[in-house]
Amino acid sequence: MMPIWIKHASQLVTMISSAPGPRTGSEMSELGIIEDGSLWIEDGKVIRAGTTEQLEQEFTERASEAEIIDAKGQLVTPGLVDPHTHVVYGGTREVEFEKRLEGASYMEIMNAGGGIHATSSMTREATEKELLEQTTKRLNSFLKHGVTTVEGKSGYGLNTETELKQLRVMKKLNETHPIDLIPTFMGAHAVPKEYKGREDEYVTHIIEDMIPKVAEENLARFNDVFCEKNVFTPEQSERILEAGKAYGLIPKIHADEIEPYKGAELAAKVGAISAEHLLKASDEGIHAMADSGTIACLLPATALYLREEAANARKMIDAGVPVAISTDCNPGSSPTTSMPLVMNLACILMRMTPAEALSAATINAAWAIGEEQNAGIIDAGRNADIVLWDVPSYQMLQYAFGVNHVKAVWKKGVRFV
Amino acid sequence: MMPIWIKHASQLVTMISSAPGPRTGSEMSELGIIEDGSLWIEDGKVIRAGTTEQLEQEFTERASEAEIIDAKGQLVTPGLVDPHTHVVYGGTREVEFEKRLEGASYMEIMNAGGGIHATSSMTREATEKELLEQTTKRLNSFLKHGVTTVEGKSGYGLNTETELKQLRVMKKLNETHPIDLIPTFMGAHAVPKEYKGREDEYVTHIIEDMIPKVAEENLARFNDVFCEKNVFTPEQSERILEAGKAYGLIPKIHADEIEPYKGAELAAKVGAISAEHLLKASDEGIHAMADSGTIACLLPATALYLREEAANARKMIDAGVPVAISTDCNPGSSPTTSMPLVMNLACILMRMTPAEALSAATINAAWAIGEEQNAGIIDAGRNADIVLWDVPSYQMLQYAFGVNHVKAVWKKGVRFV
Ligand SMILES: [Zn+2]
Ligand SMILES: [Zn+2]
Repeated sequence: MMPIWIKHASQLVTMISSAPGPRTGSEMSELGIIEDGSLWIEDGKVIRAGTTEQLEQEFTERASEAEIIDAKGQLVTPGLVDPHTHVVYGGTREVEFEKRLEGASYMEIMNAGGGIHATSSMTREATEKELLEQTTKRLNSFLKHGVTTVEGKSGYGLNTETELKQLRVMKKLNETHPIDLIPTFMGAHAVPKEYKGREDEYVTHIIEDMIPKVAEENLARFNDVFCEKNVFTPEQSERILEAGKAYGLIPKIHADEIEPYKGAELAAKVGAISAEHLLKASDEGIHAMADSGTIACLLPATALYLREEAANARKMIDAGVPVAISTDCNPGSSPTTSMPLVMNLACILMRMTPAEALSAATINAAWAIGEEQNAGIIDAGRNADIVLWDVPSYQMLQYAFGVNHVKAVWKKGVRFV
Repeated sequence: MMPIWIKHASQLVTMISSAPGPRTGSEMSELGIIEDGSLWIEDGKVIRAGTTEQLEQEFTERASEAEIIDAKGQLVTPGLVDPHTHVVYGGTREVEFEKRLEGASYMEIMNAGGGIHATSSMTREATEKELLEQTTKRLNSFLKHGVTTVEGKSGYGLNTETELKQLRVMKKLNETHPIDLIPTFMGAHAVPKEYKGREDEYVTHIIEDMIPKVAEENLARFNDVFCEKNVFTPEQSERILEAGKAYGLIPKIHADEIEPYKGAELAAKVGAISAEHLLKASDEGIHAMADSGTIACLLPATALYLREEAANARKMIDAGVPVAISTDCNPGSSPTTSMPLVMNLACILMRMTPAEALSAATINAAWAIGEEQNAGIIDAGRNADIVLWDVPSYQMLQYAFGVNHVKAVWKKGVRFV
């Protein structure tokens, strides 16, 4: 493979800093920027990052071997990381979206077969091939938006067979699609209709049937629970997460989205790597997360789509909680694949600074899914997951909002966009 | 020029209806959809729109002459129309955006030379060539987002020389860029620093010096005023708009954005073609606009960016006001060029239906700038301003948000994207 030499980037954002873990507080503003930056990429790895002047001293003799990219006036960053998606699903719900805007009530939507149970039915009915095709399109869109690593959850099956089907689709996509797709088991995404009124039995089914099978096939890295009133209680969530831990599955929690429910507290207690949403997290929960080092994965596009008040990112950053951001890509509450928009919304709706938003979408997002050795940073020896943006600075990337400024994307040194 | 034959569009949205003027109420949901739609384009015009079956009967003999576009599974709409932009300006304000998010106060920003006066200074300093280059990039981005007609305002000069410079740049761009750029004079965008405390003198200067010169060079179709507390009073606004009318300039008004200020009422009174923003418009003002047929031009991206409650589109549509939507593209409160995002936000933030959002971004937007004969509709004999979208339906276009689904754009029959 021909080496690639990117030269003269107005800002090369490396994310390199002395922070040993996920970035907290003012560390989130340390972008490791090199002005007039340059990168030498070879065999899928970054060989050297520095100023153009530095690299010219080392590589000018080899220039004729390389494909040279003139990044003058342009920004270079690590490939974005989306640490929270429900990207594998059957069907779409645009008609429900329209009906709701035409005035249909929640119950009318549900009676017409809408909501999460609609997606669950369509996912159960879909073949693996159909799921592969539909998800591939979404992953292609992620890539076009500068995203090179994506976490994906099961959770539309809500029965063992379909949960495993979703995870197998992810496994296949991870092997065949350029994007690295990191799998999370989320049998506890909702209580399936057939278990209505027997929620504890479903919890037991997850623990005794689903988790062992997921672990046996080595299909997931994480175990996620929707801990919310009328879904799974903190006690049920804890049972599921502890059961997963016994099989090596690392806990994640959808926490405190709709009501304060001590989800953040539980995340800290079980040692979750991340807690998600957190719109209604309590101060105690936030401080507990800071103490346990649990990453807050915030989803401002979902807040926008549902017209909710977004999570209080400032409070979390001030409290020392590492913050990551994500699309939450899913067919009900966030049908989008645009991490650039999510960064914009982090600034607009959550008052994160442009630098914090970029940290949250790269290095902290990588930490949130255990990919900190592979993604979210530009450094010698690391994967060459690189985005070239048609803007001169990370400030412009966040300011000129709602536009996909991606000009080129390399995944492990191969250009796909 | 080779004819173009688009075939098998899953939805061809023509916007054809029996409504004689801008669409109001339920007319905004009439999209004139043809399923399995087909278009024959020749010499920059739409020759025929119908089903693929209908066009096959008429055009199969000529198929070999044409470039055939298979639009299977894809949506075709009229080119989008952006009826309200401040697209011609010098400089950018991403550093101010960052400073504000880092906690700088409004006064600190102003003292550091920020705000509209920063843009005014940079626009005064910019050469025509610089403004042309910078604006061309933004128009190219509009085109990539499916926009084929854009209104543009002066208003960063705030002196005769620079106001005329902005308008001459628009004239040149209209002649050289594929996008039709419809010019609006807006000397009354703000009171320039040098007139502080002498606002009435500035109003007189606009009326006696600027407007005659703009009219003499035939540089604008519309005359717009920022009618807002501490900017221009309704009385001052009326003087300026009436003076413009005497020179053939059609009134527009930035009305009721920050406080209720009877701007909507004034729009109706002076016979404005449109009133803009309207976040705080009174019920009386809304009904007056319905009676006068004044179009409400709503700017949900601005509301998002400023974290304001968006305008009450539902109330306006129910009252019989024709609604259009726009990016408000400008360097301070809406630095975006994405009309697709604006349509998404019209649904999400203003509860417009997917169909209403599309009407508001095409036919009603065209009416709002006097381009209803040229844009916003797909019909035999009209300009072939056409967008092909990589989604199967207008519902999906609004549902799968934050993503630019444009696949191809033709302006007057020429493909640019
Ligand atoms: Zn989720
Ligand atoms: Zn404006």
